[in-house]
Amino acid sequence: MSKKNGVTTRALSGFMELLPEEQIVFNDMLDVIRQSYETFGFSPINTPILERAEALLAKAGGETEKQIYRFTKGSSELAMRFDLTVPLSRYVVEHYGEIAFPFRRYAIGKVFRGERSQAGRFREFYQCDIDVIGDEVLDLRFDAEIPSVIYMIFKKLGFDAFTIRVNNRKVFNGLFEGLEITNLSADIMRSIDKLEKIGRDAVVDELIELGVTKATVDRIFEFLSLKGDAACVLEGLSNLNIESAQFDEGVEELQKVTEMMKQFGVPESNFVIDLTIARGLDYYTGTVYETQLDEYPEFGSVCSGGRYDDLASAYTDRKLPGVGISIGLTRLFDQLRKKGLLEIKSSTKTRVLIIPMTDDIDSSIAIATALRNDNIATEISFSNGKLKQKLKYANRKGIPFVIFIGEDEIEKGVYTLKDFVNGTQESLVESELLQKLKNP
Amino acid sequence: MSKKNGVTTRALSGFMELLPEEQIVFNDMLDVIRQSYETFGFSPINTPILERAEALLAKAGGETEKQIYRFTKGSSELAMRFDLTVPLSRYVVEHYGEIAFPFRRYAIGKVFRGERSQAGRFREFYQCDIDVIGDEVLDLRFDAEIPSVIYMIFKKLGFDAFTIRVNNRKVFNGLFEGLEITNLSADIMRSIDKLEKIGRDAVVDELIELGVTKATVDRIFEFLSLKGDAACVLEGLSNLNIESAQFDEGVEELQKVTEMMKQFGVPESNFVIDLTIARGLDYYTGTVYETQLDEYPEFGSVCSGGRYDDLASAYTDRKLPGVGISIGLTRLFDQLRKKGLLEIKSSTKTRVLIIPMTDDIDSSIAIATALRNDNIATEISFSNGKLKQKLKYANRKGIPFVIFIGEDEIEKGVYTLKDFVNGTQESLVESELLQKLKNP
Repeated sequence: MSKKNGVTTRALSGFMELLPEEQIVFNDMLDVIRQSYETFGFSPINTPILERAEALLAKAGGETEKQIYRFTKGSSELAMRFDLTVPLSRYVVEHYGEIAFPFRRYAIGKVFRGERSQAGRFREFYQCDIDVIGDEVLDLRFDAEIPSVIYMIFKKLGFDAFTIRVNNRKVFNGLFEGLEITNLSADIMRSIDKLEKIGRDAVVDELIELGVTKATVDRIFEFLSLKGDAACVLEGLSNLNIESAQFDEGVEELQKVTEMMKQFGVPESNFVIDLTIARGLDYYTGTVYETQLDEYPEFGSVCSGGRYDDLASAYTDRKLPGVGISIGLTRLFDQLRKKGLLEIKSSTKTRVLIIPMTDDIDSSIAIATALRNDNIATEISFSNGKLKQKLKYANRKGIPFVIFIGEDEIEKGVYTLKDFVNGTQESLVESELLQKLKNP
Repeated sequence: MSKKNGVTTRALSGFMELLPEEQIVFNDMLDVIRQSYETFGFSPINTPILERAEALLAKAGGETEKQIYRFTKGSSELAMRFDLTVPLSRYVVEHYGEIAFPFRRYAIGKVFRGERSQAGRFREFYQCDIDVIGDEVLDLRFDAEIPSVIYMIFKKLGFDAFTIRVNNRKVFNGLFEGLEITNLSADIMRSIDKLEKIGRDAVVDELIELGVTKATVDRIFEFLSLKGDAACVLEGLSNLNIESAQFDEGVEELQKVTEMMKQFGVPESNFVIDLTIARGLDYYTGTVYETQLDEYPEFGSVCSGGRYDDLASAYTDRKLPGVGISIGLTRLFDQLRKKGLLEIKSSTKTRVLIIPMTDDIDSSIAIATALRNDNIATEISFSNGKLKQKLKYANRKGIPFVIFIGEDEIEKGVYTLKDFVNGTQESLVESELLQKLKNP
């Protein structure tokens, strides 16, 4: 950290800044996510990072609103986006006549939240979102397709043990409706959220204090105790005999969605119905998802989302139902890094460093150009240092191959290729070099 | 544009927001640039968009400083980055001990300038930068390598007629030194910049008024008149008999750089020495580049850069010379779009839309999953509309293939593939579908 003129060169706390070898891993993960989104037919959009404050705030509220970076420039009230969903809703309304529905879009980009600084919390972080937006209606089958995107991505990222937790908000709402405690639902949810932390007895006390009867508390816990595979939980739910059309609808949706998820290739070992997940109280209206890495439950959910009835009610009276998910890659990456789980290899994609051994660099440049035209990432060492230093440079950056080009090599047209990984060295003509370096 | 609750849904003026079919072309261009940068062995870094105001302002000044988006949040004075070079200099100083020199980095991201709104000017725009940073020294040969990156990129972007204009700041400075008018150099440069606009006579008048003698004015115009291929200009320069060590050094560098550029595969038809380009007066110290699309000179320079002696003097006393370029992709894209030069094909990367013709969607999902696992971008039509509407959806989005899956198809395991481009239709089993759709 420099302090010349009193200026610190460290990035602000809460703003991730990576070394190239880490950035390469991060970018590779971003590419996996992007390619998977495209494989499922999602199209890219890229909305501005700065928006009119009134447009972003039309949907925000509470804690989020306090976190927003907002300011005035000239006569404009500006704000930095705090998620990719509010800009999506504005976008869909603005471009309604120019896009085809159901609108399948992905968005990958930085969002900003001026939170209190704390470990593992970022003020600038990547979100990687997909959503399917319907015009007036959106088939339930899209709810079942989304988890198969999650499944593809986490498999491709190299995870095997992860669990997609599925629930349906109507089940919760229907339960409260059937038990005639809808008026207390927010308080009850808050209490239930503390279950793992404070234990069952303390939650029971809280619920009784809220005015819930002992009999109803028992039924809530009967509901919460339903665990196991999907079929099991669904049977348990129907045995609860909750009298609520919403409850029945939720159970039916949950049944259909989990059934279709299997058809979409998500193995039963990678998903469960989890009746405790709710994903906030206001926003989602049907299916909700969370994703947990089985070996790292402390990471929390690494991919979450759900179904909402009405995307853009702040901007339009048109009904635009949708379903989507978001991956918070900055946080996930940071957690993996802290656990030492990133496979960091090299600080460059360069496959070969060409080291000219004479002042005549024509051949070095010619071979570098041929390699690059063949899409083989190549550097030429132009420093005046000793050979040892040049090899150290290659090693430090993790460049797997080096080519030496001296007078002898130039005369004969045969070049020495050193393979750092195998520790071998061989003499090759240009076409052989290209062949060798093209195939890893 | 919606106006519900008085909230407009249009993006702010100066902030580009594209439709998916445009965004796909934009992203493809970004990918070409990124891949080319990686082929030349540049490593990615991604610095924060928000920084300490004092860190960003340590190097800004004048017009730029007025344009910066800055604000206070809590006790922090924050600013949004206005280029990728200032963050690079901060980064190199902060991570000096963790990176290998020469440090070859690329950075691609949005930068922000609150300029007065005018046509073709953006307040949020992409810069795509590469720089090579040396520790104390940096070989001149890197100056010759950079134009070959420009050449690869613009060829891959589909341009043939473009010209990389090369100059060296030492030539200009040496000229003024040799003519003993260094004290007037800023004013003279400003005047010369207007040459095309106001004509030679007016510029001569201005120079005389500044106190430049008639004889010196003649020599300046003799200098400016040197045009043609590199050899020609270089010969003209040496014939000028300017007495200045700096001038001689500049000419020698220019000679070496242009000679090596040819070795690096840049054809002479794609570059010239242009003695009139200077790229601002303070920043660059040696080689400078601009790139012009020959058919669209009104676009201005689409890729510019140069050599600087000292990257990070605001943060460190260590000497860090560098050479780099920047492509302003948002502006270039906007110009190409306005000229109708973008090849916009479809609003999705989806290759095939599967249309279930019956309520039994098991086969549709199974085939979609097989295609996706083979990285073939696939959508399934889950809407309840008529077939005509579904085909219209595929057409509107530019999806080239459709598969119909009805009862008959399910029973026989043979599916109908409709090719929109050729207007053909054929019956295929699953393995044939995969084969056919994999190879475009």
